Amino acid sequence: MKLSSVVDRLDDTLRTADYADIDASANGLQIGPEEAEIERVAFAVDGVRETVDRAVEADADLLVVHHGLSWGGFDRVTGRTYDRIAPLIEHDLALYVSHLPLDGHQELGNAAGVADLLDLEDRAPFGELGPEYIGQRGVASDPYPSDELRERLEASLETGGQSVRLLGFGPDRIEDVAIVTGSGIDWLDEAVATGADVLVTGEGKQQAYHEAREAGINVVLAGHYATETFGVRSVQDVVADWGLETTYLEVPTGL
Amino acid sequence: MKLSSVVDRLDDTLRTADYADIDASANGLQIGPEEAEIERVAFAVDGVRETVDRAVEADADLLVVHHGLSWGGFDRVTGRTYDRIAPLIEHDLALYVSHLPLDGHQELGNAAGVADLLDLEDRAPFGELGPEYIGQRGVASDPYPSDELRERLEASLETGGQSVRLLGFGPDRIEDVAIVTGSGIDWLDEAVATGADVLVTGEGKQQAYHEAREAGINVVLAGHYATETFGVRSVQDVVADWGLETTYLEVPTGL
Amino acid sequence: MKLSSVVDRLDDTLRTADYADIDASANGLQIGPEEAEIERVAFAVDGVRETVDRAVEADADLLVVHHGLSWGGFDRVTGRTYDRIAPLIEHDLALYVSHLPLDGHQELGNAAGVADLLDLEDRAPFGELGPEYIGQRGVASDPYPSDELRERLEASLETGGQSVRLLGFGPDRIEDVAIVTGSGIDWLDEAVATGADVLVTGEGKQQAYHEAREAGINVVLAGHYATETFGVRSVQDVVADWGLETTYLEVPTGL
Amino acid sequence: MKLSSVVDRLDDTLRTADYADIDASANGLQIGPEEAEIERVAFAVDGVRETVDRAVEADADLLVVHHGLSWGGFDRVTGRTYDRIAPLIEHDLALYVSHLPLDGHQELGNAAGVADLLDLEDRAPFGELGPEYIGQRGVASDPYPSDELRERLEASLETGGQSVRLLGFGPDRIEDVAIVTGSGIDWLDEAVATGADVLVTGEGKQQAYHEAREAGINVVLAGHYATETFGVRSVQDVVADWGLETTYLEVPTGL
Amino acid sequence: MKLSSVVDRLDDTLRTADYADIDASANGLQIGPEEAEIERVAFAVDGVRETVDRAVEADADLLVVHHGLSWGGFDRVTGRTYDRIAPLIEHDLALYVSHLPLDGHQELGNAAGVADLLDLEDRAPFGELGPEYIGQRGVASDPYPSDELRERLEASLETGGQSVRLLGFGPDRIEDVAIVTGSGIDWLDEAVATGADVLVTGEGKQQAYHEAREAGINVVLAGHYATETFGVRSVQDVVADWGLETTYLEVPTGL
Amino acid sequence: MKLSSVVDRLDDTLRTADYADIDASANGLQIGPEEAEIERVAFAVDGVRETVDRAVEADADLLVVHHGLSWGGFDRVTGRTYDRIAPLIEHDLALYVSHLPLDGHQELGNAAGVADLLDLEDRAPFGELGPEYIGQRGVASDPYPSDELRERLEASLETGGQSVRLLGFGPDRIEDVAIVTGSGIDWLDEAVATGADVLVTGEGKQQAYHEAREAGINVVLAGHYATETFGVRSVQDVVADWGLETTYLEVPTGL
Repeated sequence: MKLSSVVDRLDDTLRTADYADIDASANGLQIGPEEAEIERVAFAVDGVRETVDRAVEADADLLVVHHGLSWGGFDRVTGRTYDRIAPLIEHDLALYVSHLPLDGHQELGNAAGVADLLDLEDRAPFGELGPEYIGQRGVASDPYPSDELRERLEASLETGGQSVRLLGFGPDRIEDVAIVTGSGIDWLDEAVATGADVLVTGEGKQQAYHEAREAGINVVLAGHYATETFGVRSVQDVVADWGLETTYLEVPTGL
Repeated sequence: MKLSSVVDRLDDTLRTADYADIDASANGLQIGPEEAEIERVAFAVDGVRETVDRAVEADADLLVVHHGLSWGGFDRVTGRTYDRIAPLIEHDLALYVSHLPLDGHQELGNAAGVADLLDLEDRAPFGELGPEYIGQRGVASDPYPSDELRERLEASLETGGQSVRLLGFGPDRIEDVAIVTGSGIDWLDEAVATGADVLVTGEGKQQAYHEAREAGINVVLAGHYATETFGVRSVQDVVADWGLETTYLEVPTGL
Repeated sequence: MKLSSVVDRLDDTLRTADYADIDASANGLQIGPEEAEIERVAFAVDGVRETVDRAVEADADLLVVHHGLSWGGFDRVTGRTYDRIAPLIEHDLALYVSHLPLDGHQELGNAAGVADLLDLEDRAPFGELGPEYIGQRGVASDPYPSDELRERLEASLETGGQSVRLLGFGPDRIEDVAIVTGSGIDWLDEAVATGADVLVTGEGKQQAYHEAREAGINVVLAGHYATETFGVRSVQDVVADWGLETTYLEVPTGL
Repeated sequence: MKLSSVVDRLDDTLRTADYADIDASANGLQIGPEEAEIERVAFAVDGVRETVDRAVEADADLLVVHHGLSWGGFDRVTGRTYDRIAPLIEHDLALYVSHLPLDGHQELGNAAGVADLLDLEDRAPFGELGPEYIGQRGVASDPYPSDELRERLEASLETGGQSVRLLGFGPDRIEDVAIVTGSGIDWLDEAVATGADVLVTGEGKQQAYHEAREAGINVVLAGHYATETFGVRSVQDVVADWGLETTYLEVPTGL
Repeated sequence: MKLSSVVDRLDDTLRTADYADIDASANGLQIGPEEAEIERVAFAVDGVRETVDRAVEADADLLVVHHGLSWGGFDRVTGRTYDRIAPLIEHDLALYVSHLPLDGHQELGNAAGVADLLDLEDRAPFGELGPEYIGQRGVASDPYPSDELRERLEASLETGGQSVRLLGFGPDRIEDVAIVTGSGIDWLDEAVATGADVLVTGEGKQQAYHEAREAGINVVLAGHYATETFGVRSVQDVVADWGLETTYLEVPTGL
Repeated sequence: MKLSSVVDRLDDTLRTADYADIDASANGLQIGPEEAEIERVAFAVDGVRETVDRAVEADADLLVVHHGLSWGGFDRVTGRTYDRIAPLIEHDLALYVSHLPLDGHQELGNAAGVADLLDLEDRAPFGELGPEYIGQRGVASDPYPSDELRERLEASLETGGQSVRLLGFGPDRIEDVAIVTGSGIDWLDEAVATGADVLVTGEGKQQAYHEAREAGINVVLAGHYATETFGVRSVQDVVADWGLETTYLEVPTGL
């Protein structure tokens, strides 16, 4: 399939254009000649030297990632940027990026993946960012203890050996779950306002401790990488259905 | 001592005015009537409900913190802001804040405190932010393994029970140490450029994992709270020398 | 009634949200804990120490004003801001503000109140500000001399002993009246463009003298305070109808 | 004298360039051909149709004013702008403007003129605006009652028949006087901070009433026009000394 | 006809308001008193001293131009601006300007005029600028060599004696033609994206040479003035139909 | 020599850092790994596919150009950007860019090169842009006709077969010459103000015709490429003196 066709299909599936004004990431095709022919596609959370090298080893023509290289553009291709871009170009490996569109997709996205893992029902978009959403809410049909939630996530996610942390300032039993993966702690106020029992996210921040404590809400910090493998894996399935060969490159950071 | 005098002395000691254009925090006196009489001063890392309540219990007239209430100003005194400000006003407790001036002070500051703990020599300002610095560098007279550095910090800091993490991508033996406490990971590039063997900071961020790995530098994540108790404690000593009664309020967050 | 309910009703009645982008004033609840119980409500044009003190004396739970404390937010609660906020918090007195929404409301607003006083008919919104209006136009069924208009306003308004001034550069007989209360002189050009015989406003400005003279339009300067008592009084009636006890605090400034 | 020479001398005398970044007014030559020959110069507070017409009648070649036509530039020469500019051009009358440079000049300026009238001593710049000042302070050698100050100004200034108003919230006897003419009420806080007994200015504003009252300072509102005739008259003397014929055009607004 | 009526009709015909946010030119009436009576209208590409003088000689009441005097407004009427505005005002000659509205008008506009000259069919708007277009595309019913296109333009346009230049990097035979007159080279990428065989514009720019070469598209540089006489001439016909006397002032620049 | 050393020397020689805030071009090293070893350096005016290909053919390690690839940064490496960057990376060819620093250098720069060609004396910086200059002025020891100036430039410059154009609106004999190469026509007003007899530049613009005519100054349009070969050639000599092999790639555009 031509790269330009793959890109059009992905942009369409992920609604790339709708997130253009709210995302610092340049989503869509970041590196590559549109006219290339694509047979093998690699998937990873981060577009970095390690995953680029592994995609080259896997003889991939295209690498699809959640975190790309261009955040607000670059002035130069030198230093770290050169070291990441050079092997892509030298090995005819294109780079496709989907950041917030992949966080917020209500079926294929990262938050949706966490909600699947937790068997949540009555799903609804959560995590407002301008006119879009970058997370999801849902309800546990059978409420269970907050610590069990922590354990389930620690057991299932690729945490790179790190523990999942519970800031247990909310109700003991969890029913209503709000999810924004990665750096989603900034949506704590929205979680409180919508009456969630817990906000599940990736990384924490110092000020969140007291904000959660004062608001009486649970927070689960399950890791940035660990909560963001779902989106690229879901897209992998979609792309495989198009008849392309696919592979997932696992490089957990433990952060 | 009159509050206005205490404020003038602190502003002078900490060079509050020099950081006015580079800090979102409104440093200096944030809450309080300048004409109040101050006898007892409480110190804490965070100005939040818990520390405000404890300062009230301690019958303090002034609470000095690193993280205050006003970040870019507030439009309203409602919700969480009301709940934090109301007890301050009801109990005639003033609030003094020093954010970046306290991070960067080369003798009293947070980074300087970490450097003291590590017995670093040949200290120099580190962590450029506009025309100022918010961290410090130094050299270990006797180089030691990177894991020993991790262990020393874990043993000495108030980590709230959390472990200190080493991203061990740099040299095995540590000599040159760069420090920016709290959310200091953004100064990783400066640490690399200046040839440091390790960057010691508080919180991590997903992208730092691969940036450190590709640059071949060690990163130690010792906790935001844990690395930022030094500044307020040092100021406590200064204020005690002025003849005021002081107390430190320990509320570790583990973040 | 719970404060949050009173606030919701007022925001709804006055369309607070619609003016959010065009008003420097933080309209709605400015100070207070949403969960408080409200029985007595005081009303005043200005939210200042004098009216706060009188509202405390009147044992009010809520003070509703046209000019509040937050214009573009505040960085600190010190000095004049402290002196105004402290008694509100110490006496559990909440502060609700409605600036431009109350100027422009076509039935309850300040301009509408002036139009009522002048028995104007065929009312229409006047005083464009972005997508909203902050004044009103109307027609006198029976035209009368411009000086009579001046006298009527001087006789009826709370001018604090100051005279109402007529810049008599327009037609001798008044039929078409444009009104923007307070600092409304900036809408002089709109008054000219819509063919009004007079612009009634509160304060003047040096340049308006010649602009009115060159355009051949009358201007009546009736005082900022004097033209802005109508809105809060109208809202007082609305709130009284909700079953709450109310009182109006008269503190004319003569400006 | 060539217009360009007159302009150079005036710019030099008034330090026009130093106010370029802090004044919305385009100070210096606003309208006119630099190569014109100047014999007669008219002076007025406002550059408006009335003063332009009178300057034409006086057969002037140049009109020097405090308030000009260009505030932030104009997109078109139509309507009121056309009506003011057209007679200037048709009668070869140039327009020179000095707004803030003339307010702040410590010898020739408007505030200096008020200070002269009040026989103030120990003069110092007052009224900070960026790196410049736009007013002046001074001390009365023999303190006198605040109402006497009001009366002296009312007796001496061209108030257009309006009364001078005293907001008598400060000390009864006046010694230390701060002056910013015209719309100078925004410097009330600076007046309080520097310990002035009274701020003398031109126009008031609703919020100043309570700000003055709460700060315990007197405010005298003597009229915008009335306080701003000094500057142009002083410059008139300077220009007469250069050997040019001069005339002052008196058009008080009473505002 | 009153000037205000002529202006209303022109604004209506040319959709002046729709281009307000995307054009630095202040389109519509730039200089003049709306109440003037208009009998004779002159037309020119540039509103400059030469055309103003010729319009005065022609005893015109109104000069309609493509390039006016106000681009982002002016702070002063001095120097070149004075020399252009003064004769307009002294001779009661108003100035009406239509920049982008006249480039983009799909029937009367500059690009439409070039398309007429080239007998193009299947016309469509081209040259996106925000929500509007400033050019036109069309198809030659009978494809012909690119050099013939160059020759036809050189033969028919008022090039002021300059040659029309072909950057012949595209197909030899021309079928699909994209046109943005004047400084239209910035729309080269849009021409490539829409599959045009050639972009016809006025002025070139150094970087366009290689951009066209690498993209494999022809570019014809026919002169800024030469490609922009169509719009004003078309409007001349419209105005003549309204019963006003008209004249076209030819001042080619060869640029 | 290591690339990083070459870059440091060039940045130093050309004062790259001083132009950082006034140039949209990212000057200095734009593409490449700092640790590469440099033996052969190619020079060209434009960094485009043609010059990149020729530099590769010449087996160069570094290409130094006046017009680079990064103007305000790029979001993606796709399309034309990919096609230019890919061969650089694939052939280990670094790209160094010097735009305004090379225009303005008073000895090595483009304007200085034109001044050398014209044997000008009494050189001085010309062409203000913020705190820097991007052109040069000088005086002909023996004044000569303006058309002779045109002919000399046409005879000596690489115009790509295009004629040099004289807008002969100034004095017949040329003595004082102002030069800003490339798109330097915007400095016409400065040339007039400093009393130059002619402004020599590369490209014209429609409005410059009448501006020059009304100001009575000559303008010579000698071509963007043609006036900007001097800078890179001078740097070539400098680099050759460092012992590196060099070559100049001539690709005139005729624009």
